[in-house]
Amino acid sequence: MASRLCLFGLLMLSVSLVLASDQSPLQDFCVADTKGQVSLNGFTCKDPKLAEANDFFFSGLHPAGNTSNAVGSRVTPVTATQLPGLNTLGISIVRIDYAAGGINPPHTHPRATEILTVIDGSLEKNVAYGNTIAIAALSSQNPGVITIANAVFGSKPDIAGDILVKAFQLDKNVVTYLQSKF
Amino acid sequence: MASRLCLFGLLMLSVSLVLASDQSPLQDFCVADTKGQVSLNGFTCKDPKLAEANDFFFSGLHPAGNTSNAVGSRVTPVTATQLPGLNTLGISIVRIDYAAGGINPPHTHPRATEILTVIDGSLEKNVAYGNTIAIAALSSQNPGVITIANAVFGSKPDIAGDILVKAFQLDKNVVTYLQSKF
Amino acid sequence: MASRLCLFGLLMLSVSLVLASDQSPLQDFCVADTKGQVSLNGFTCKDPKLAEANDFFFSGLHPAGNTSNAVGSRVTPVTATQLPGLNTLGISIVRIDYAAGGINPPHTHPRATEILTVIDGSLEKNVAYGNTIAIAALSSQNPGVITIANAVFGSKPDIAGDILVKAFQLDKNVVTYLQSKF
Amino acid sequence: MASRLCLFGLLMLSVSLVLASDQSPLQDFCVADTKGQVSLNGFTCKDPKLAEANDFFFSGLHPAGNTSNAVGSRVTPVTATQLPGLNTLGISIVRIDYAAGGINPPHTHPRATEILTVIDGSLEKNVAYGNTIAIAALSSQNPGVITIANAVFGSKPDIAGDILVKAFQLDKNVVTYLQSKF
Amino acid sequence: MASRLCLFGLLMLSVSLVLASDQSPLQDFCVADTKGQVSLNGFTCKDPKLAEANDFFFSGLHPAGNTSNAVGSRVTPVTATQLPGLNTLGISIVRIDYAAGGINPPHTHPRATEILTVIDGSLEKNVAYGNTIAIAALSSQNPGVITIANAVFGSKPDIAGDILVKAFQLDKNVVTYLQSKF
Amino acid sequence: MASRLCLFGLLMLSVSLVLASDQSPLQDFCVADTKGQVSLNGFTCKDPKLAEANDFFFSGLHPAGNTSNAVGSRVTPVTATQLPGLNTLGISIVRIDYAAGGINPPHTHPRATEILTVIDGSLEKNVAYGNTIAIAALSSQNPGVITIANAVFGSKPDIAGDILVKAFQLDKNVVTYLQSKF
Repeated sequence: MASRLCLFGLLMLSVSLVLASDQSPLQDFCVADTKGQVSLNGFTCKDPKLAEANDFFFSGLHPAGNTSNAVGSRVTPVTATQLPGLNTLGISIVRIDYAAGGINPPHTHPRATEILTVIDGSLEKNVAYGNTIAIAALSSQNPGVITIANAVFGSKPDIAGDILVKAFQLDKNVVTYLQSKF
Repeated sequence: MASRLCLFGLLMLSVSLVLASDQSPLQDFCVADTKGQVSLNGFTCKDPKLAEANDFFFSGLHPAGNTSNAVGSRVTPVTATQLPGLNTLGISIVRIDYAAGGINPPHTHPRATEILTVIDGSLEKNVAYGNTIAIAALSSQNPGVITIANAVFGSKPDIAGDILVKAFQLDKNVVTYLQSKF
Repeated sequence: MASRLCLFGLLMLSVSLVLASDQSPLQDFCVADTKGQVSLNGFTCKDPKLAEANDFFFSGLHPAGNTSNAVGSRVTPVTATQLPGLNTLGISIVRIDYAAGGINPPHTHPRATEILTVIDGSLEKNVAYGNTIAIAALSSQNPGVITIANAVFGSKPDIAGDILVKAFQLDKNVVTYLQSKF
Repeated sequence: MASRLCLFGLLMLSVSLVLASDQSPLQDFCVADTKGQVSLNGFTCKDPKLAEANDFFFSGLHPAGNTSNAVGSRVTPVTATQLPGLNTLGISIVRIDYAAGGINPPHTHPRATEILTVIDGSLEKNVAYGNTIAIAALSSQNPGVITIANAVFGSKPDIAGDILVKAFQLDKNVVTYLQSKF
Repeated sequence: MASRLCLFGLLMLSVSLVLASDQSPLQDFCVADTKGQVSLNGFTCKDPKLAEANDFFFSGLHPAGNTSNAVGSRVTPVTATQLPGLNTLGISIVRIDYAAGGINPPHTHPRATEILTVIDGSLEKNVAYGNTIAIAALSSQNPGVITIANAVFGSKPDIAGDILVKAFQLDKNVVTYLQSKF
Repeated sequence: MASRLCLFGLLMLSVSLVLASDQSPLQDFCVADTKGQVSLNGFTCKDPKLAEANDFFFSGLHPAGNTSNAVGSRVTPVTATQLPGLNTLGISIVRIDYAAGGINPPHTHPRATEILTVIDGSLEKNVAYGNTIAIAALSSQNPGVITIANAVFGSKPDIAGDILVKAFQLDKNVVTYLQSKF
C-alpha cells in the first residue's frame, strides 16, 4: 500500500453492465449536476449528452490523508459530490487514514450502512496500532455523517447548556468548556 | 498490499452507531441464520440473544485469490452468506484478484450497483497490467451475479441453439462449441 | 388534557379503508405475532383468522407517565410491540410527559422521522415550562431509539475510555465518572 | 384540551438529531419550495441557505376546527404544504374536530397509513359522543385523501350514471340526486 | 381473440434473464409456498431446490370469464396465489371479461398501480360496447382490491347505518336496502 | 386478434381510483413533461393544470409491428415516454410481435420485472410457431433494456476485443466479425 502503488483510484466498468438494478435510479444514469440551479432531493442530472467517462472515475484516493489533528485520523470521501456518476446509485466509499493511536470518533450515517475493510495496518476496537488505511463502503451516494461530539457540543445554534447538563449528567462548567472546544 | 500487511479483514464499529438508517432493516440487526429451515425472501435471523461480535467480522480477505483460470481473475465475496451480520443491511464487498492480463468477464449484478477501487496494481479498460487487487462494494447484502457468457451459453436447461444463432448471429457450429465450453 | 378526559386511546378505522397504500405491506394486514418462534426482519404475523379488533386498538395512553427521574420526562411508546396491528404499516406514536424543566435527552431514531405535537403545556427549546404532554408520531412501526449519552457512555461492551477521551476531549477521570453513571 | 391549553403546535427537535434515517431523503433536509416553478414528483427544495427554524414549526393547531357542516367534523392538515420542513420526510399529522354525533366520512389515503389518537372526548365506531378532538398521524408528507362519496358521486368529469346504477345497485333517480349533492 | 387462438397463457423467459432488478427481491427467486405454516408479510418461499418451470407458467387464461352477474364483468387474476413464481417480483396481471354493457365497478388497489389494455372489443368510459376482453397489469404480486360499494355497504362487521346516512347523504331506508344487497 | 378488433389501446380508469398506492408517487399524478429543461432522475411533471385525459390514454397498439429483421420480432413499447401519465407509477407494457420462428433475443431489464402473456399464436421456449402476439407488463414506467448481444458486441465505445476473446472463449476473428455486425 506504499506510494509505489501506482494507481489508487476508482474505475467503473461500462455503465450499461455495471449499473444494473439499483433501487433508486429511474434511468440508466443521472450524472450529478453539482452546480444545478434547481434544488431538489438529491442532485439534478447534467445533460445526458454531456456525460463522459470521467464522470465515472475518481483518481484522488492514493495520497494519504493528513492525520495531524485531535483524533489522529482523516476521512477522504468519494460520494456523488466528488464522483458525479454515483448520483442516484446508492453507493459510495471513503478512504480512512489513521495515525498510530488514531481513532475515527463515534458517529452515525443518517442515510447509509457502512462496511469497513482494513487494507494496510491494523485496528483493535477501532484504535489504530500503527499507520492504518481502511476503505469503507456506504449504501448511499450521499450517506451524511453526524459526529456525535460535534452534533451535541458544537451544534449551531447551540443546544442549551441546561439540556446537556441533564442529558450527560455533567457539571455546567464541563459543558461550557466542551461547547467552547467544538 | 504486501504480505507483511498484518490485517486484511472487516471490522464493523459498534452496531448501534454504525447500522443507523438503512432502508431495509426493521430492527437493529438481523444476523443471517444461514441454515434456517424457513425459506423466505432473504435470510431469517438467528436468535438475537445468540448474536456475537464475530457475526460482524470477517477475516478471510488477506490471502490472494487463485487466478489460474481462463479469465485470469478471482472474486472473493463477502456477502451475507460469508458475513451473517450484513443481513438486511444493503451492503457487501468483494475482493478481486487479477493476474497480469486478467479480466473480470462482462457481468451484471441483478440487485446492486458496484463501485470498484484498485488498491494495488493497475487496470486499463478492465484489463490488469500486472498482478492487481481491487475492492468492489455493492449496494446489497446479496447482490447476485450474472456472468453473461455463462448465462447465455452455459444455462441449464440450455437456451435452444437456434435462439442463440439468431440472437448472436453466429454459425450453428460456433454456438454448439460455445455451449460445450460453458 | 385533564384526567376528566375520558378516552385517551388509539382507534383505527375499519382496516380495509384506513390501511390503504403504505409502502411496506404485501397484504391487507399482518398483525405482529410478538411471540413467534421464527426470527426475521420485523415480526411474523399471527394467523390472519385469529386477528381481532383489539389488535388495532390500544387504550393505555391516558395515564400520565412517571417523570421522577434524572431527565424529568417519560416516553410511553405505542409501536408494533404494544399495538400488534401496526406491524408492516410504517407508523407509530409515543406519548411524552415532561415535568417542569424536564427534557427529552438528545437521541436519534435509526428507522424513522419524528414529528412532535404539544397537546398540553409548553416546550421552549425542548425544555418544558410546566407539566407538558406531547404526542410524537414516527414513520416506522419499530422506530428504534439511540439515546446519545447512553450509547456513548453506557454501551455494553463499553467503548474504550481512550476513544472517548479523544472523541469528546474530556479528561480521563470525567470519562470514567460518566461511564459509571450510564 | 380546553382553550386555556396554551400551546398547541408542532415543535421539531434540532434537525440533525431528529431527522435521522427516513427512507426517502437524500440529504439532511429539503424544505419544500411550495411556489417553485419546476413541477416534479414532490416539491423542489428552497435554497438550503434560506432554510430557517420556522420551516420546521407550525403553530396553527390550537384553534378548534369548524364542524358546522353535513358530517359534523373538520380536518386541519399539517402536511408539507403547511409545514415545508416535512418535505421528503415521510410523515405528517392532522387535527380532527368532531361535533357531537359527527363522523369523519369513509375515505382512503392513497399514499399513507393512518394512526388516530383521541386526545379529548370519545369516539365509538367513529361517531363522536360529544365534542371530540383527535390527532392522526400519517406515513407520508403528502398522504392525499379520497373521500369515497365525493370520489364516486362528485368526481369531475362525473362517472356515468349508468355505471353508478350498476355498481351501487341504486335507482337512477337516487344516483342523479346524489350526483347533484356532491 | 376467438377460441381458435391456441395459447392464452403466461410464459416467463429464463429466470436469470427476466427477473433482473426489481426492488423487492433479495434473491433470484422465491417461489411462493402458498401453504407454508409461517405467516409473514408476503409468502414464504418453497424450498428452492424444488422450484420448477411450472412455478413460472400459468395456462388458465384462455377461457372466457363468466359475466352473468349484476355488473356484467368477470376478473380472472394471476397473482402470486395463482402463479407462485411471481412472489416478491412486484408484478401481476388479470384478465377482465365484459358482457355488452358490462362494467368493472369502481374499486381501488391498495398496493398497486393498474394499466389496462383492451385486446378485443371496446370500452367507452369503462362501459363495454359488446363482449370485450382486457388485460390489466398491476405493479404488485398481491395488489389487493377494494370494491367501493362492497367495502362501504357490505363490510363485515358493517359500518353503522348512521355513518352511511351522513357520509352519503342517503335516506336511512336506502342505506338499509343497500346493506341488504351487498 | 384480427384487424377487425376495433380497439387496441390503453384505457386507464378515473385516475383518483386507479392510481392508488404505488410506492413511488408523492402526488396524485405527475404527467411526464418529456421536453422539460431540467434533467433529473425520471421526468419532471407538466403543469398539473394542463394534464388532460389523453395523457392517460395510448391508442397506437393495434397495428402489428414490423418483424422483417434478423430476429423476426418487434417490440412496441408503452412507457412513460409514449404515455406520459405513467410517470412515477411503476408500470408499463409492451406489445411484442413475432414472425413464425422469430425470437425476442436474450435481454435484461435493469429496472423491472417482466410478465408475458401470449394473446395470439404460440411460443415454445420463446420461439414463435407462427405469427404470434404477446403483451408483456413491466414493473417500471421506464424499465430499460439491455440486449445482451448488442451490449457485448455492439457497445460504443466498444469493449476491447481481447476481453471478449477471453470472456466468451471465442477466436479473435469471430469477435471482430461479431463487432462488425452489431
